[in-house]
Amino acid sequence: MFTGLSAFPLTPFSAGSPDEKGFLKILRRLTEAKVDSLGVLGSTGSYAYMTREQRGRIARVAVENAANIPVMVCVGAVSTDEVLRLADDAQQAGASALLLPPVSYQALNDDEVYGLFETVARRASVPLCVYDNPGTTHFTFSDALHGKIASLPGVHSIKIPGVSADAEAAAVRVRNLRDRLPAHVTLGISGDSSAASGLIAGCEVWYSVCGGLFPAVAKKMTEAAAAGDHAAVRQQSERLMPLWALFGQHGGSFRVISAAAGLLGLTDYDCLPRPLLPLRADQLADVKRVISSLELA
Amino acid sequence: MFTGLSAFPLTPFSAGSPDEKGFLKILRRLTEAKVDSLGVLGSTGSYAYMTREQRGRIARVAVENAANIPVMVCVGAVSTDEVLRLADDAQQAGASALLLPPVSYQALNDDEVYGLFETVARRASVPLCVYDNPGTTHFTFSDALHGKIASLPGVHSIKIPGVSADAEAAAVRVRNLRDRLPAHVTLGISGDSSAASGLIAGCEVWYSVCGGLFPAVAKKMTEAAAAGDHAAVRQQSERLMPLWALFGQHGGSFRVISAAAGLLGLTDYDCLPRPLLPLRADQLADVKRVISSLELA
Repeated sequence: MFTGLSAFPLTPFSAGSPDEKGFLKILRRLTEAKVDSLGVLGSTGSYAYMTREQRGRIARVAVENAANIPVMVCVGAVSTDEVLRLADDAQQAGASALLLPPVSYQALNDDEVYGLFETVARRASVPLCVYDNPGTTHFTFSDALHGKIASLPGVHSIKIPGVSADAEAAAVRVRNLRDRLPAHVTLGISGDSSAASGLIAGCEVWYSVCGGLFPAVAKKMTEAAAAGDHAAVRQQSERLMPLWALFGQHGGSFRVISAAAGLLGLTDYDCLPRPLLPLRADQLADVKRVISSLELA
Repeated sequence: MFTGLSAFPLTPFSAGSPDEKGFLKILRRLTEAKVDSLGVLGSTGSYAYMTREQRGRIARVAVENAANIPVMVCVGAVSTDEVLRLADDAQQAGASALLLPPVSYQALNDDEVYGLFETVARRASVPLCVYDNPGTTHFTFSDALHGKIASLPGVHSIKIPGVSADAEAAAVRVRNLRDRLPAHVTLGISGDSSAASGLIAGCEVWYSVCGGLFPAVAKKMTEAAAAGDHAAVRQQSERLMPLWALFGQHGGSFRVISAAAGLLGLTDYDCLPRPLLPLRADQLADVKRVISSLELA
């Protein structure tokens, strides 16, 4: 399941709680597009804003409505004990894999992060994907630590942050990391604006926020990458530049994708968990223009 | 209650759960020393590693055993709704004040942080203290934002991060901030190694980790500051330099204070919540030497 397009659906909120109806509408788009896997609760999936009970419920709803597409569930939390409880919940919900970020409060050292992954890998009976996202976890992996963690039984993939837009630099970055990993561990690119770079550099998966709302365009990219058609991968990504530009303007994809979900009529206009605030009217108009000009609706 | 020594007790862990017996032993040292207030669950109080239920229980235990010393409870969480639930719990437990850090997952902007404080200030019926700690929350306050938040009814103090060791620079920093604040809002220094600088620069409170385990030495500093005896404040802090040096070596005070609590026989030797790991034997020996040479036991 750790190849192709792994679509990360938004978990929308309504009046302070996860909006399951909206979530199901988003999920339906992904199952109809036959994405390769679903990445639930990670990134725009809003795990950090939800209680254990809310996370368990969204995991169950996702698996029950996934049309047999494998579901990976994010189990990140500051406390290892809480991660273990969330991992149990996700597995009981029927998750096919767990996505684990080393969420930090006090800054973590390498031994502590390794210990976290070792503990969870020992307990879990489904594959683990390492969630490397220094922007939100405030932990930076060395390639050596990635290699050590990837050698733990049960670790099957690494979701890496964006790579350079320069093809040679991206290729070197991916090659250096891959040299440290067992052959069965795949690399997945995230940071949608550099997805093309990552796929061309040899990542086997795109862990994609864009693909969580606009699966058709994202699938074109992963299918072109799988066919070795790098020109088509680049072309698709260049076409989506106005979307990547919006992500850049608004501190990442979360506020933009939430606004887009509202504009598509899938969720409330304001579907972000507080304290996050929705875009202003003029910013929303920009998002509307981009969706329309790129024919994303 | 927002003046003098606000002692921040460690919440020790044992076998994955808060160790209430150990917590009570630590608390007893603080009530016997008659600290001016208690700051529970913040900083080494480990709020970020605990469930809502565990936090409610520690808040209740603290208030019930505080010997009438006012208790401030940290209610930080990523989600505003969770903060509101924690604020309700803390008030039901009998908290005299709430300590609120803008914990972030997605980076927050000023409007979002203001919105968080406004929402909580509106709901709370006890005073609020703003917890400014960019090292753990990854949010940096401007003085203008501090001024806006401090003008909300119910906000009574700001816990600021460490200031410069240079007396003039510290004085300018504190003066610039104070110029933005209503007169009734006090400033509290944290970052124990720069407590002397902060107190001499005019902070009225020391929100103190050191004071949460070693209240007698910390109280000497706040009492000297209140008496205007800056030479004595400086002398006390200089005497404690080996302790500040240990904090610097181990990424802050948490791992060192946890080790010290074990060495004093108040808690397990390994009393940190996972994924945090205790100090190695040689590092522990350093802590033991410093405690002994400074006569802190």
